[in-house]
Amino acid sequence: MESNGPFSQKKLAVVGIGLMGGSILKALKTDPGRPAVVAAFDIDAGVLKKVREADLADIATDSPEEALRDADFVVMALYPKRAIDFVRQNAHLLKPGAVITDICGVKREIEESIPSLLPDGVSFVGGHPMAGREHKGFDCSVPDLFLGCKYIITGGEGEALEQVKGFADILGANKIVLSDADNHDEMIAYTSQLPHVLSVTYMLAAGTRGVEEFSAGSFRDLTRVAMINDEMWSELFLENKDKLLQEIENLRQGLEAFEALLSQEDREAMRRKMRAAAEMRERISG
Amino acid sequence: MESNGPFSQKKLAVVGIGLMGGSILKALKTDPGRPAVVAAFDIDAGVLKKVREADLADIATDSPEEALRDADFVVMALYPKRAIDFVRQNAHLLKPGAVITDICGVKREIEESIPSLLPDGVSFVGGHPMAGREHKGFDCSVPDLFLGCKYIITGGEGEALEQVKGFADILGANKIVLSDADNHDEMIAYTSQLPHVLSVTYMLAAGTRGVEEFSAGSFRDLTRVAMINDEMWSELFLENKDKLLQEIENLRQGLEAFEALLSQEDREAMRRKMRAAAEMRERISG
Repeated sequence: MESNGPFSQKKLAVVGIGLMGGSILKALKTDPGRPAVVAAFDIDAGVLKKVREADLADIATDSPEEALRDADFVVMALYPKRAIDFVRQNAHLLKPGAVITDICGVKREIEESIPSLLPDGVSFVGGHPMAGREHKGFDCSVPDLFLGCKYIITGGEGEALEQVKGFADILGANKIVLSDADNHDEMIAYTSQLPHVLSVTYMLAAGTRGVEEFSAGSFRDLTRVAMINDEMWSELFLENKDKLLQEIENLRQGLEAFEALLSQEDREAMRRKMRAAAEMRERISG
Repeated sequence: MESNGPFSQKKLAVVGIGLMGGSILKALKTDPGRPAVVAAFDIDAGVLKKVREADLADIATDSPEEALRDADFVVMALYPKRAIDFVRQNAHLLKPGAVITDICGVKREIEESIPSLLPDGVSFVGGHPMAGREHKGFDCSVPDLFLGCKYIITGGEGEALEQVKGFADILGANKIVLSDADNHDEMIAYTSQLPHVLSVTYMLAAGTRGVEEFSAGSFRDLTRVAMINDEMWSELFLENKDKLLQEIENLRQGLEAFEALLSQEDREAMRRKMRAAAEMRERISG
């Protein structure tokens, strides 16, 4: 079967072969829109061996030169600070016309750093596929990690933007969302970072009580993301500190308001809040 | 097929045919342990008609006398205050030796009221099957609502306790948990009521922002129970006010502590909290 689509003549390099990078390679492997050449870069020899054994890339290397040479499209599947460091050290290897993108869960810091480090003629487009798992590393990667996900794109224009959209499409993303970095970071603070903070805080509030005897669906829902990758999320929280602090503060105030209604036994006001929340949720899911 | 098991010679009455009562009838209908006679009581003629049409009960009536006459086992599938009222008005109809149970999500108020209202020789055992749906009413009832659930039993002893265990078994409960009412209400404040308060408060914190463009799994998890039955939950919250206020307060303090660490950029302390939460969650699910 001949490859077709926007990458059929291109070399695509995936930088960092962990949960996300590995899942990208696995998604590309069987897609009819697979690139002409796929290069996988990682510093871990064990991971590269597994990539070769599973035939997930044409090139599996720990050499940035080999991975980036003549690459048309580069995906950095790294935590934010490492993505910025990687560009700082290797931007000179990128050819004019190349497009480079990332998958980081915060966008302001990335966009303030990376574009200014790039040589002329290389375009950066920020990307954030809203997908993940509780576990990390290449061994947990799966080809359908991105299937049906939202793919947020921040910045970028013209052909570079179209290529990132095409890439999201190959991964199986269900919806492209265009945003600016500031709006992205505010929304993500609310929709993703705050739920993780809540899940961790809620789980710890169990203390030594034998709560599992009394746990059901709502407990499981709320604690699922307490199985958190502490290295990644602590970095993301710090990089979005101002926005996340604002969201935690909002929520604390909301809890205080609910506590006051319950304390005063103002049943009607509690019910109004519940109905408003139910309507909002219904609208979003409906 | 002959019925067998502890109810094969008994008349069982279900009082209140909503989501829970309807699901009980549907679970009983096809179970090999179905009672000799099933009576369904409700004040809604439309619901009784549907019960008759679906052949879910031998008796479908709005007469407490007819439902309770000679009943061996009575399940009140009512909100707590209505359950107490029902017993107050109809306890004299219960025969000596009868066992009466409930399915309410709070237990102290129930146990402080109901036993003292019963005639001699009638036993009360508190029950709380941890199962539910976002929607209410008979039309949403399903035969497998209780399949795999935890069934908490508070109080009761001897033959009466055994009958409630047998009933939980017929519904398909996966695990019987024995507790006293005070411990039940504290645990449920944490495992069930607080998640509902958090879900509502979190949903409302979205305000008018277009958060759905940025929503993924953790958002969906956290907002699922924001589709809340405001009539029932507001009653349950008020009946467990002291315990729930304590849990909300605990959680607010936990958030304050996390906020302080983030504000001070104490990454290591944040990571320790995340790891502790992940380990707790892993232990519970593992």
